[in-house]
Amino acid sequence: MENIYDIIIIGAGPAGYTASIYASRYKLKNMIIGEIFGGYATQAHIVANFPSEESIEGSELAEKMHKHAENLRAEIIQGKVIDIKKNDNNFEVATDNNKTVIAKSIIIAIGTKHRKLGLKNETEFVGRGVSYCATCDAMFFKNKTVVVLGGSDSANKASLYLADIANHVYQIYRAKELRGDKQQIERVLENKKIDVIYETNIIKLLGEKKLEKIILDKEYNGSKELETNGLFIEIGSEPEYGLIEKLNLKTDELGFINVGKDQKTNIEGVFAAGDITNATGNFKQIITACSQGAVSANSAYNYIKSK
Amino acid sequence: MENIYDIIIIGAGPAGYTASIYASRYKLKNMIIGEIFGGYATQAHIVANFPSEESIEGSELAEKMHKHAENLRAEIIQGKVIDIKKNDNNFEVATDNNKTVIAKSIIIAIGTKHRKLGLKNETEFVGRGVSYCATCDAMFFKNKTVVVLGGSDSANKASLYLADIANHVYQIYRAKELRGDKQQIERVLENKKIDVIYETNIIKLLGEKKLEKIILDKEYNGSKELETNGLFIEIGSEPEYGLIEKLNLKTDELGFINVGKDQKTNIEGVFAAGDITNATGNFKQIITACSQGAVSANSAYNYIKSK
Repeated sequence: MENIYDIIIIGAGPAGYTASIYASRYKLKNMIIGEIFGGYATQAHIVANFPSEESIEGSELAEKMHKHAENLRAEIIQGKVIDIKKNDNNFEVATDNNKTVIAKSIIIAIGTKHRKLGLKNETEFVGRGVSYCATCDAMFFKNKTVVVLGGSDSANKASLYLADIANHVYQIYRAKELRGDKQQIERVLENKKIDVIYETNIIKLLGEKKLEKIILDKEYNGSKELETNGLFIEIGSEPEYGLIEKLNLKTDELGFINVGKDQKTNIEGVFAAGDITNATGNFKQIITACSQGAVSANSAYNYIKSK
Repeated sequence: MENIYDIIIIGAGPAGYTASIYASRYKLKNMIIGEIFGGYATQAHIVANFPSEESIEGSELAEKMHKHAENLRAEIIQGKVIDIKKNDNNFEVATDNNKTVIAKSIIIAIGTKHRKLGLKNETEFVGRGVSYCATCDAMFFKNKTVVVLGGSDSANKASLYLADIANHVYQIYRAKELRGDKQQIERVLENKKIDVIYETNIIKLLGEKKLEKIILDKEYNGSKELETNGLFIEIGSEPEYGLIEKLNLKTDELGFINVGKDQKTNIEGVFAAGDITNATGNFKQIITACSQGAVSANSAYNYIKSK
């Protein structure tokens, strides 16, 4: 029984770290299993909206949370969870590096994957022009030119937000019309700082150290080349379905795990936190993930103590 | 029109500061009006569960958030809001120092008041033995003796949690029986580290620099004096009703503002965040308040932009 964990936290981002910090403070034996330490937080080159940190590199903030969890004695291991089974009251968790651990409760905090454009050097330019989060990174493009890729609510919102800050915004969309909230679309179309380029795709990213220009699959104003300082790829993000399916977790229509105010899922003993949940709708931030991590650990504590 | 604010944030605690940080990042003209800068966060002598800060004085953490908001150009003024009126689409906010400001939206983040015991030197001992938050402060009483005052869920939970950490817990309650969750009560009664003292009140706090002993209104084990290192006063907290009534905000049965996942209240243009809401049930933390502040600012942004 010594080897049974109170909580296995799957995912080593802000939600998972905070869940662990709270779990450790409740003296619950907990382990974090994560694929990429820090999660998406590491992708924001500068985080300027985490309260109390006026400006910090995303990777540094994540590292501080990692150490915080570790110093409270969380076991943190790298790996991908490939299977979870519920046996009686316990969960058996298997990783891709042949580890099997048993726990009384599970917190799923594996985040989402941004849909990527899929171009060769896209990853290389992340933090050097390419971003997947206008809220995080817009300020770094003050009075500059940016491109937003996408045509649904999140892309339209990003364009409007960027138009307040950047000098000019090109919004590129593969379809004939923008989608989503009508008023928002009207405001995009009326905004003199935004040019929408329809039925067009981006096929190449160019630049030496930073992104400098993009290549379109169709001419715009007589050229397939478009100079830009930034590219915001806003074509959505999606949860990883593997564990959701294995545990039969209920999701909303977009595939995010349905949770209550207490971060409980439909399966007893399974909690979820962070971007993979629908806890704060489409608005997903480091601070919201942390909060959900704390709440999920508190709910797991109550669950374990009630057994 | 120059003097109309996009958002007036009422309350200068973690929720209010974070709302302002997000509002400023959205380029919304915002003002924070607060009675006590930092709110309850300033009462936790050490905060050890705010992710990324392993150990920080509550007042220092609050100060960092204050500066963060201020450096993003929030106007922050000290005062108590005594009246709010909705005129057409705007809100007119009046303070006790004769200031009147107009705003398109309101975020209420005024927190709660801990119910106090009401003893003379109670405030003086806060951070020096007296605490209103077991989750925050239990670790500082490792292997020490503590008293928990109260007999409902939060007090019972505090006793159980403290019993894991402290050497001994006396739980003092004015009634004949503990209230709330039965299983939890059983666990309190079975716990060898907890002694429940019924039908007893605390009438005096004694100590030189720190709390050293308390005086009971009735003898326990032959004495009215009880030596202790800590006193956790867990007799509940309550929202301030003034603004809730003036705006006709809907509350839950405990009097906390009813909010959705987007921190919207029942009144258009009014959002609420932090301890005064029911967003995370009874579990109210600095990190949950911050998250709600961020979400409320995002919702206010969407509201203003949709006008």
